[in-house]
Amino acid sequence: MRTVLRSATREVVIGGDEPFCIIGERINPTGRKTFQEQLRRGDLSRVEVDVAQQVAGGAMVLDVNMGAPLADEVELMRRAVRLVQGVTDLPLCIDSSVVEALEAGLDAYEGKALVNSVTAEEDRLEAVLPLVKRHEAAVIMLPNDETEIPEEPRRRLELVERLVDVATGRFGIGVEDIVIDPLAMPVGADTTLVNRTLETIHLVHERFGLNMTLGASNVSFGMPDRAGIGSAFIPMAMALGLTSAIMDARAADLVRSVKAADLLLDHDPWGARWIAAHRARQEREQQAPG
Amino acid sequence: MRTVLRSATREVVIGGDEPFCIIGERINPTGRKTFQEQLRRGDLSRVEVDVAQQVAGGAMVLDVNMGAPLADEVELMRRAVRLVQGVTDLPLCIDSSVVEALEAGLDAYEGKALVNSVTAEEDRLEAVLPLVKRHEAAVIMLPNDETEIPEEPRRRLELVERLVDVATGRFGIGVEDIVIDPLAMPVGADTTLVNRTLETIHLVHERFGLNMTLGASNVSFGMPDRAGIGSAFIPMAMALGLTSAIMDARAADLVRSVKAADLLLDHDPWGARWIAAHRARQEREQQAPG
Repeated sequence: MRTVLRSATREVVIGGDEPFCIIGERINPTGRKTFQEQLRRGDLSRVEVDVAQQVAGGAMVLDVNMGAPLADEVELMRRAVRLVQGVTDLPLCIDSSVVEALEAGLDAYEGKALVNSVTAEEDRLEAVLPLVKRHEAAVIMLPNDETEIPEEPRRRLELVERLVDVATGRFGIGVEDIVIDPLAMPVGADTTLVNRTLETIHLVHERFGLNMTLGASNVSFGMPDRAGIGSAFIPMAMALGLTSAIMDARAADLVRSVKAADLLLDHDPWGARWIAAHRARQEREQQAPG
Repeated sequence: MRTVLRSATREVVIGGDEPFCIIGERINPTGRKTFQEQLRRGDLSRVEVDVAQQVAGGAMVLDVNMGAPLADEVELMRRAVRLVQGVTDLPLCIDSSVVEALEAGLDAYEGKALVNSVTAEEDRLEAVLPLVKRHEAAVIMLPNDETEIPEEPRRRLELVERLVDVATGRFGIGVEDIVIDPLAMPVGADTTLVNRTLETIHLVHERFGLNMTLGASNVSFGMPDRAGIGSAFIPMAMALGLTSAIMDARAADLVRSVKAADLLLDHDPWGARWIAAHRARQEREQQAPG
């Protein structure tokens, strides 16, 4: 399956035969007090730094979330999308729980965006999927509904099936434009949770061959040495069929683990990118003082 | 499946519900010129250092290989096994391509050893498996025979089936004492090779539920940043069913990736070992000068 995303001038493909798609998570006020205050004042100056750092780190798509408490999320999303598209040619992932913010982001966006996200709740499907269709976007879909976030991977698989049926049958969205989020939970809350995520990835991959993405940072939440956990988790999930993650693209350890897994899964012909990245790192180290 | 290994006083279990079994690869003269010369002179003084470093790094079993050119491997194996058992209570993996060296090692060994290894070649099976049975040892079996090292995972699976039939049926070895080596090859030689290893692991796990180990260092051979490759490979293989690896137990990055994968696969209840390892690292860093 190939999910094609586009900015005005650049195309990025998410797929099982492609390098893993690193979606930069950083443009998001959650847990960032200073950034939240800036957004309440309508100050988007921080966003340019976030873009630059993520591009330097290896992001291939950038998530944009403007959900700060008491801020005008709709207006901020419109402005942020324009601002980010003015400074990078990476495609964007328009991220909000507010339908009007998704709509404002999609209206402002030039290209084919990824919408983050919609659950299997009926009213959400009815509100979000027409937007996705009208803007010819791709969409991240979560297998939880009104009644539950299912623990059992097989129940999640049933919801995935329903999501695919509704998106393709009722709304005419192409199956290649569906990206499933298999629901990554903190291992620190319950050490059985990640097994369920991995099993869900395996089932969705075997059964539907759909592209998948998830919030990789969730997994290590609350634990020490988060980079160590994330650097193991992403390759594990990739081995089972995960094709993308919303992650900290500024974290060199994490990005290196993605690139190593790309090499091992034969998504880096001749290892050329792995070797080039190693050389670039060596050159930077030689140039660095001390 | 639970493969139980024992020294005189300690038991280690390889299994899908156990922490991943780290087998230290270091007591092996391959690629170590000074050590080879020492072994030719009958000097085993280096072995104690290798034991100490691997134990400190987190080895749970130690591989012992005395295959230096022009050295008396049989006599060295007998002495090395006694020496290592005198300084550590970890179970050992007796590693040789020479049947007499395996026999000498098993004769000298106190406990239940792991024998490394036997292929599906008829004369090797006939020579090695009676030894394994007589010493009530466990054995690493490789799915390659007289005619080929098969590239195709399904062909490897056929050979695994034959290995299991022969070991259990003809020699009366318990299926729980069989550890399959799914054949790890250098990704630098051909970037499609690791996919085949991963697929083999998945198939052996799904079909037979057997324990598996492999030489993890092979995978990164000839490539830059070997630790980066190994730290991604082992968690990937673990996600698909690998339960052990013969690896560099002195490499902190690699061991950390194993422990992270153990945590994520729910083999570290409450994350207690992950948290304790992090604290120990912090304490060492605080105590270290500078």
